[in-house]
Amino acid sequence: MRGKGITIRNYKVRDIRFPTSLGAHGSDAMNKDPDYSAAYLILKTDDSACQGHGLAFTIGRGNDLCCAALRQFSAQIVGMELAAITEDFGGFWKHLNGDSQIRWLGPDKGVVHMALGALINAIWDLYAKVEGKPLWRLVAEMRPEQILKCVDLSYLGNALSRAEALELLESAEAGKAVRIEVLERSGYPAYTTSVGWLGYSDERIQQLCREAVSDGWTGFKMKVGADLQDDLRRAQLIRAEIGADRILMMDANQKWEVAEAIANMRELAVYNPLWIEEPTHPDDVLGHAEIARAVQPIKVATGEHCANRILFKQFLQAEAMGVCQIDACRVGGLNENLAILLLAAKYGVPVCPHAGGVGLCEYVQHLSMLDFVAISGKREGRMLEYVDHLHEHFVDPVRIHKGCYQLPRAPGFSIEMKPESLARFDFENGSAWK
Amino acid sequence: MRGKGITIRNYKVRDIRFPTSLGAHGSDAMNKDPDYSAAYLILKTDDSACQGHGLAFTIGRGNDLCCAALRQFSAQIVGMELAAITEDFGGFWKHLNGDSQIRWLGPDKGVVHMALGALINAIWDLYAKVEGKPLWRLVAEMRPEQILKCVDLSYLGNALSRAEALELLESAEAGKAVRIEVLERSGYPAYTTSVGWLGYSDERIQQLCREAVSDGWTGFKMKVGADLQDDLRRAQLIRAEIGADRILMMDANQKWEVAEAIANMRELAVYNPLWIEEPTHPDDVLGHAEIARAVQPIKVATGEHCANRILFKQFLQAEAMGVCQIDACRVGGLNENLAILLLAAKYGVPVCPHAGGVGLCEYVQHLSMLDFVAISGKREGRMLEYVDHLHEHFVDPVRIHKGCYQLPRAPGFSIEMKPESLARFDFENGSAWK
Repeated sequence: MRGKGITIRNYKVRDIRFPTSLGAHGSDAMNKDPDYSAAYLILKTDDSACQGHGLAFTIGRGNDLCCAALRQFSAQIVGMELAAITEDFGGFWKHLNGDSQIRWLGPDKGVVHMALGALINAIWDLYAKVEGKPLWRLVAEMRPEQILKCVDLSYLGNALSRAEALELLESAEAGKAVRIEVLERSGYPAYTTSVGWLGYSDERIQQLCREAVSDGWTGFKMKVGADLQDDLRRAQLIRAEIGADRILMMDANQKWEVAEAIANMRELAVYNPLWIEEPTHPDDVLGHAEIARAVQPIKVATGEHCANRILFKQFLQAEAMGVCQIDACRVGGLNENLAILLLAAKYGVPVCPHAGGVGLCEYVQHLSMLDFVAISGKREGRMLEYVDHLHEHFVDPVRIHKGCYQLPRAPGFSIEMKPESLARFDFENGSAWK
Repeated sequence: MRGKGITIRNYKVRDIRFPTSLGAHGSDAMNKDPDYSAAYLILKTDDSACQGHGLAFTIGRGNDLCCAALRQFSAQIVGMELAAITEDFGGFWKHLNGDSQIRWLGPDKGVVHMALGALINAIWDLYAKVEGKPLWRLVAEMRPEQILKCVDLSYLGNALSRAEALELLESAEAGKAVRIEVLERSGYPAYTTSVGWLGYSDERIQQLCREAVSDGWTGFKMKVGADLQDDLRRAQLIRAEIGADRILMMDANQKWEVAEAIANMRELAVYNPLWIEEPTHPDDVLGHAEIARAVQPIKVATGEHCANRILFKQFLQAEAMGVCQIDACRVGGLNENLAILLLAAKYGVPVCPHAGGVGLCEYVQHLSMLDFVAISGKREGRMLEYVDHLHEHFVDPVRIHKGCYQLPRAPGFSIEMKPESLARFDFENGSAWK
C-alpha cells in the first residue's frame, strides 16, 4: 500500500514542443504564436512497466528553462522510496518547495514552481498507477485526514484553518458513492474554447459553432481583447450561431487596464456573457475586485496564471474571483491544487479549471472529478474547459460525450504521452523539428 | 548622445557564486545557508573598454537557471545599436518583457523576470558609461518626459495615470541642484544589517554593535522569526548596546502566519522597532494590510521579494506597505523600478531599498540618490540598507562615511566586478570552488 517497496531509481526529462503556431491554434490577444510545449518528466523504478509521468505546460521558448529546473528537483528524489514521499506528502511538498536557495527564485512562482508541479504530478501518476486507480479515485477514496495530510496550509491561516479544512472534507464524506455514480452515468459538464480563437476567420468560427452545437455543446468561449469593434462583431456572430440559451464566455487574456475592462464589458454585456476571463494582469487582486464590482452580474474568472495558493486566497477574500480557474501546471502540482480547492469550497466559489494546451484537459478532469466527489461535493455552476487539440498524443486521452467529460478509468493521472509522440516532437531532434 | 554609433556586438554570461554559507553570513529565519551568487552579464561593443555589466542576485542553486534565461534575452539584442534601445527605452522594455512565449513563464516574475532585470541594468550601465556619468546622474539630469519615456505604465492606470506621473516628475524639477549639493556634502543615510544575523553568537552581536555605534551608525536591523524567546533576548541585547535613541528594525523574512506576526510583534514592540520587515509571505497584500493595521505605529516594510510593479501597486493601494523596499534584481531592472518609485511617490510612502547580497548595495545607492534628486525629492524618513560583505570584488564599490552612502562618481551603475573576482568565483571552475 502507498508505494511500499517501490523506489525511484532514475528520471528522464524531455523538451517536447508542438509547432502549433503554424495553424493559429491557441492564438489570443496576448499570445499570438504559441508553440504548445511540455517540460516532460518520466520517473523510473525497478519495474520498467511502472513509471510516473508528469509535465509542465509552456508555450515554447523557455520550455528548456522548465526542463533544467525539473532536472534539479528530480535529482533530489532519486533513491527515495515512494512510500516515504506519500506517507507525509504535505510535509514532503513543503520540504521540496522550501529549499531556501531555489525558493529565492520565487517564492512559489515562475519557472521553478512550474517545474515543482511537474515533478509532484509525476509522483502522483506513479502513486495512482501503483495503487491501480485513476488519480481522481485515489484521492476521492482517501479519508479526510489523509487528504489533509497531502496539503501544506502555510500562509492560509487567516482564511482557512486546519479545523475548517477538515470539517469541509468530513462533510463531503456523505454521498461520495452517489456522486461517483452520477459521474459514471453522465460525466462532468464541459464547455468548448475551440470555436473562438482570435486567429480564425469568420467562416471557420461559424462552421465550428455549428459543429459544436450539433455535437451537443452548451457552453462556448471566445477570445476578446485585441480590438473592441472586432470583439463585438465576433460576439454577435457566435451568439447568432449558438442562440440565446446556450452559454457564452469571454476571455481577454490579460489585455486590459482596469478601467478599459469595465468600459469594454459594458459594451459586450449585450451578448450576455456568463463571465469575463483574465480581464487584466493576473497578479492584480484589487484590480479584479474593482472590475468584479463594476460588471456584475457578469462574473470575473481568473486563475490560469495565478502563481500560488496565497494569491488564490486573496482573490477569494477580496471577492475578486467569481469563478476559480485552477491550472494543473502553474502551481506546485496536485498538493497545492488541493489547498486551492479547499479555499474555493470555503468561499463557495465554483471551480472551472483552465484547460487546453498540451495535456491540461487530461490533467484537470481528475481535479474537477475529485472536487465533486470529495471536496466541494457540488457540480452545479461548474464546467471543465475543453479544447480539441493534441489529445491523440496521449496514452489515455480524455473522452467527451455530448459536451461532457467521461470518467477516467485507467490507473494514473492520464498524462502519459505515447513514446512515438515524444520521439517525434522532441525539440530540435524529433522529426517534427527537422 | 544616447549611444549613437555604439552597437552591442556580443555578450558573455557567467555563473558567479561565493561560498558564503560557510560563515553564516546572510543567515536568517528562511535562508539558512545562502551562497551569495550572481547571474552575471557582460555586453560587449566594438570598443573593448566600453562594456555594460549587469547581474541578477541569487543565493546559490538555480543561479544557472537565471544564467540560461539571461543568455536567451541577451541573444535578442546582439547587433542592436544602443541608441535604438535608449531612444524609446520604455517601449523596448515592454517589447522584451512581452515576448509571449517567455511571458507564459511569469508573467513578470521569477527566473525570467530576474534575468530581464540583469540585462536591462547592463544596458543602463553601458549607457551611463557612454555618457560618462554615474547612473543616478544620467537619470536625474533627464527631463521629466525623458524619464517617463523609460517607463512602462501598463496595468498601473487605476493607481497612477501618465499625467500624474509627469506632474510628479515636473514638481521635482525645482531644487534638483540643491539636492545634489546635499548629497555631495552629506551622502545618503544608511542603516546596518551586519550586526543581527541569526547565525551569529551573542558575543559577536555585541561586538558588532559596539563597532557599528563607534563608526557612527544610527540604524540597526536584526533578524527575527526563528523563535520568539530568542528574538526577545537578542532584541534586548541589541537595544542595550545601541541605546534608546538609535533606530532598531526587525526582519522576519516571511516566516510568520498573519496572526502569528501580529501576536509576536505585540511582544517585540517593547523594544520599539521602527518596522517589521517581511512578516509573512511576500505575495500576501491583504495579509500585510491586516498586520499593518494591527501593529501600528510599528510600520510594515516589504518589497525585496515583490515580483513586479503590479504587486507594488496593490501594496500601496491597500496601505499594506508603510516602507517600500525596492530591490534592484527582483523586478525587470531600472525601468520597472522607476515605475515603482513613481508609485511610492504618488502614495507618499518612503522608499528604503533592500541591499546586501552581492552588488545590491552598489546598485541601490543609485536608485535612492535619483529618487531624492528627481522623483520624490525627499530624503527624510528614508534609509539605504548596508551590509558589509563582498564589496571588495567591485571595481567601484560603495563608500560609507559615518553611516551614510557617499555619492557614486564613476560612470556607470557601479556593478562591474573585478576580472580576478569573476575568475576566482566562477562556479565549479574558479579556484574558490576547486
